[in-house]
Amino acid sequence: MSQILSGIAASPGYAIASIVTLKPARPAPLREQVADTHAEQARLAAAIEQSRAELRTIRQLTEQRLGAEKAEIFEGHLMLLEDPELIDATNEKIAEEAVNAEYALHEVAGMFIAMLESMENELLRERAVDIRDITARVTSHLLGEPHQDLSTITETCIIAAEDLTPSDTAQLNLDAVQGFVTVVGSRTSHSAIMARSLDVPAIVGIGESLLDLPGGTLVVMDAMEGRLIVNPTDEELAEYKARKRKYDERKANLARLKELPTASLDGARVELAANIGRVEDVAKAIANGAEGIGLFRTEFLYMGRDSLPSEEEQMHSYKAVLEKMEGKPVVIRTLDIGGDKELPYLNLPKESNPFLGLRALRFCLKREDLFRTQLRALLRASRFGNLKIMFPMIAVLDELREAKRVLAEERAKLESEGVELAARIEVGMMIEVPSAAVAADLFAKEVDFFSIGTNDLIQYTMAADRMNESVAYLYQPCHPTILRLVNMVIRAAEREGKWVGMCGEMAGDPSAVPLLLGLGLHEFSMSAGSVLPTRELIAGLSKHEWSRLAEQALTMRTQEEVLHFVQHQLKGAN
Amino acid sequence: MSQILSGIAASPGYAIASIVTLKPARPAPLREQVADTHAEQARLAAAIEQSRAELRTIRQLTEQRLGAEKAEIFEGHLMLLEDPELIDATNEKIAEEAVNAEYALHEVAGMFIAMLESMENELLRERAVDIRDITARVTSHLLGEPHQDLSTITETCIIAAEDLTPSDTAQLNLDAVQGFVTVVGSRTSHSAIMARSLDVPAIVGIGESLLDLPGGTLVVMDAMEGRLIVNPTDEELAEYKARKRKYDERKANLARLKELPTASLDGARVELAANIGRVEDVAKAIANGAEGIGLFRTEFLYMGRDSLPSEEEQMHSYKAVLEKMEGKPVVIRTLDIGGDKELPYLNLPKESNPFLGLRALRFCLKREDLFRTQLRALLRASRFGNLKIMFPMIAVLDELREAKRVLAEERAKLESEGVELAARIEVGMMIEVPSAAVAADLFAKEVDFFSIGTNDLIQYTMAADRMNESVAYLYQPCHPTILRLVNMVIRAAEREGKWVGMCGEMAGDPSAVPLLLGLGLHEFSMSAGSVLPTRELIAGLSKHEWSRLAEQALTMRTQEEVLHFVQHQLKGAN
Repeated sequence: MSQILSGIAASPGYAIASIVTLKPARPAPLREQVADTHAEQARLAAAIEQSRAELRTIRQLTEQRLGAEKAEIFEGHLMLLEDPELIDATNEKIAEEAVNAEYALHEVAGMFIAMLESMENELLRERAVDIRDITARVTSHLLGEPHQDLSTITETCIIAAEDLTPSDTAQLNLDAVQGFVTVVGSRTSHSAIMARSLDVPAIVGIGESLLDLPGGTLVVMDAMEGRLIVNPTDEELAEYKARKRKYDERKANLARLKELPTASLDGARVELAANIGRVEDVAKAIANGAEGIGLFRTEFLYMGRDSLPSEEEQMHSYKAVLEKMEGKPVVIRTLDIGGDKELPYLNLPKESNPFLGLRALRFCLKREDLFRTQLRALLRASRFGNLKIMFPMIAVLDELREAKRVLAEERAKLESEGVELAARIEVGMMIEVPSAAVAADLFAKEVDFFSIGTNDLIQYTMAADRMNESVAYLYQPCHPTILRLVNMVIRAAEREGKWVGMCGEMAGDPSAVPLLLGLGLHEFSMSAGSVLPTRELIAGLSKHEWSRLAEQALTMRTQEEVLHFVQHQLKGAN
Repeated sequence: MSQILSGIAASPGYAIASIVTLKPARPAPLREQVADTHAEQARLAAAIEQSRAELRTIRQLTEQRLGAEKAEIFEGHLMLLEDPELIDATNEKIAEEAVNAEYALHEVAGMFIAMLESMENELLRERAVDIRDITARVTSHLLGEPHQDLSTITETCIIAAEDLTPSDTAQLNLDAVQGFVTVVGSRTSHSAIMARSLDVPAIVGIGESLLDLPGGTLVVMDAMEGRLIVNPTDEELAEYKARKRKYDERKANLARLKELPTASLDGARVELAANIGRVEDVAKAIANGAEGIGLFRTEFLYMGRDSLPSEEEQMHSYKAVLEKMEGKPVVIRTLDIGGDKELPYLNLPKESNPFLGLRALRFCLKREDLFRTQLRALLRASRFGNLKIMFPMIAVLDELREAKRVLAEERAKLESEGVELAARIEVGMMIEVPSAAVAADLFAKEVDFFSIGTNDLIQYTMAADRMNESVAYLYQPCHPTILRLVNMVIRAAEREGKWVGMCGEMAGDPSAVPLLLGLGLHEFSMSAGSVLPTRELIAGLSKHEWSRLAEQALTMRTQEEVLHFVQHQLKGAN
């Protein structure tokens, strides 16, 4: 009978193979007195040099396989090898105490690791992992026992280990290694993040019993559920082989779709875009085949710091995103703070109902100074790509007009200063306040596009705080009311020849997508990971047919009815 | 040249007449030793008896002129005359100190007055006024200087006084007395409240300079603005005569309208109802010609106490309102707590956005125990009048269905217990969540009526907390979006043959009323004071014409545009 070990599903997929168990971590080196401390320091220098050469190779390999961003970890490792606090301190310890280099390095690094691990700041805690990683590497060279090079594993296998360092993970020979399982770790540990980047199945945090398995044990990794099936039965093997085949086929299909535009079964084109919060997120959007950025939440540029970002700083962020997207559309939303997003350094008064308070554009129109700074940064970045500017939280026409007036003023100022700007920048607004949805026909005459922010639109339409568990039952994206509002917005925009996107969770919700396609939504913006599955879903749907079905859904009475109907139709189609 | 004294406008109107200055308060009686304390006690008893006879007459007079409720003050005075703490203590003081009755009474009463006036509780502080009033009355009999009887003033005049006691005010001969002005007092002092009940102009709190005016001085009272014009010029006299005439005509017209049903110029009937929060408010609703109660906010029964009101207690309140309304419709809303209304004794968890939280029916459906208690109380009261039950804060159909199910269960239980209930009770819902407005067609099939709660509907539609000053600019009742939603609700109800009321501030807003009439609103529920002015306004409007004009308003872009349009049309009509 098989045995099942449970862990944390850290990177999805299935794998079936025998395990190779990595050597456990080396024990702490013993303290030895040395006579010639200079010779000992020379040994250390040589080991550092060997480590440096190794890391350069790994960095290059990683850059080829995973891109420059992931390779940055090893840039960090290389810098640590030159860090005087670490290296000079180790040399001093050798000289002062006349001890062996392994011991001195272990002691000095251990102190830093302990200090960093006690920090609140997660970034600093992660730094401890890096120090541990390079200490092990240098030590292996000191001992003349080369660091276990995972790139040399050529047999088909699943790796079992205490933990994998980033450099271990980056070196995995994925032609051979089908996945890995570890004793420790979480969904956000380095090895888990690397596994998802490498697209290799991983289960972490299984616990000590993992290392009891003898090398060569046949296992099935169900990294969807975080289950490791040890010595599977024939039935289990057959079942998981079938699951793996289906999963791999789907993955191959998605990979193929990555290069294709989004189109329905009957050839209607829509745009699938990604929502991002930071410049770094662009890479993932592109990797997932996003055709644009449908929402860049600029508030992240303002958060986690002590003062407002300067015009220059913002301009560089916007420019970076526009350049990385190489002419594909990038919708940048102006600052949306307030509600659940606070900026402590602005010292805003506490509100009884912040979601119904001075948020987003309402705030920007009262604090024109910082609004103008952002608009100038956007305008200055505009010539580096296909920028569209979007205003959030508009309820009445006066707000839109006021925002456009301020934008026009800043444009005129920059032009008179001789700054080069894009000739034409589309200006749009979020539809997230019910008033804006109901009066979309009026707004459609004065914007270039709409983007429906369903998270807030649902919250306000149902009068239910989306963060409040007690009223969570009212968060119903497919409720006929929400569909009706979406329909009103699309119809109103169509009459004025304007396009409509959606940038709430609903845009990537497989139950909503067929209806949204049917209602005629032009752009769907979602988290990067949802882009390919949504493209696949749409490729199987007839827009013409769903246009008819969506009309029916508009007349239904409850979300339950709508969801049953959609599921029934989707099944019928397969 | 005239002189102007400013005070607090305590009861509206205009008056022009010479002043009669009342004698200032009697100085404190002197202490005198008496030989025969029994004789002194007999004098006191006689004065009390005379006061009692006088008060019975005043009580009767007040009951005839102002109703039983206002006459209760004098019931209180009569009881004070039997209060052992006051009367026995005075008799003891006479016996023990061998002093005159006037002095003994003044000393004993003075102690109580000082004590009561130091209280936090306003009701107790008012009680001091009553003791002062009856002490003065008894003293006047002891001195053989009868209490100045204001009912004997027969010359046309305006009374000027330090203050007026409730009994002074109740006795005013209103054929002669055109108004009164006082040195002290506030809008909520006894004399101010009585003045409004008697519908006589009053300005209070003018200050000591008032008593410097010689008797017979001609004055103009502008009790709209709180101005007393002393020795008016000819121009001022002419102006205020004209203002008074216009005001009196309007008042007469409103008084006539009180007895009439509400109808537009072209004969369309609508119902004007009052919003109330307490049983006591019914009197005012009736006095102002309300044709029903459009909203009884039952949460007041739950507030300002330490525990939930029992079924019996609630039943008596509902019964009292139904009986007082004598068969006219009474819409009772089930408990609407949460949001800005808290019940500390329920210890509900603090919410980040209480207006978007577990409020009203959402709360009742989670706390079925107290919901069922209220429904049973309502059902049991139903046979005493024309009850309609209304559920607040419904967003989705499931909530309505659930509430109706619980109501039906309690009805069945009571019937099986043999309790007598009204055969038919209309069941309706508030339209205050945008979702309910947008899906009104679905709800209309499952209720008997709607009442649009504009305060919340506007708040949620605009996503702007109506208590938050920073976003107050978004509270726009006549914004086209709000008018569109109101129109959707009325059209949806009409198709199902259901009626639609409105119980937010908007229903009594003179700029909104013509549009609401035009859109076909059936019932307007407002604060009692707005009923007659609204009836007058509607009497001058053609529903047919405003139906056309309201259609135009629906296509406008801003509230400003709508308000200009309405004002322009109203002026054009005059």
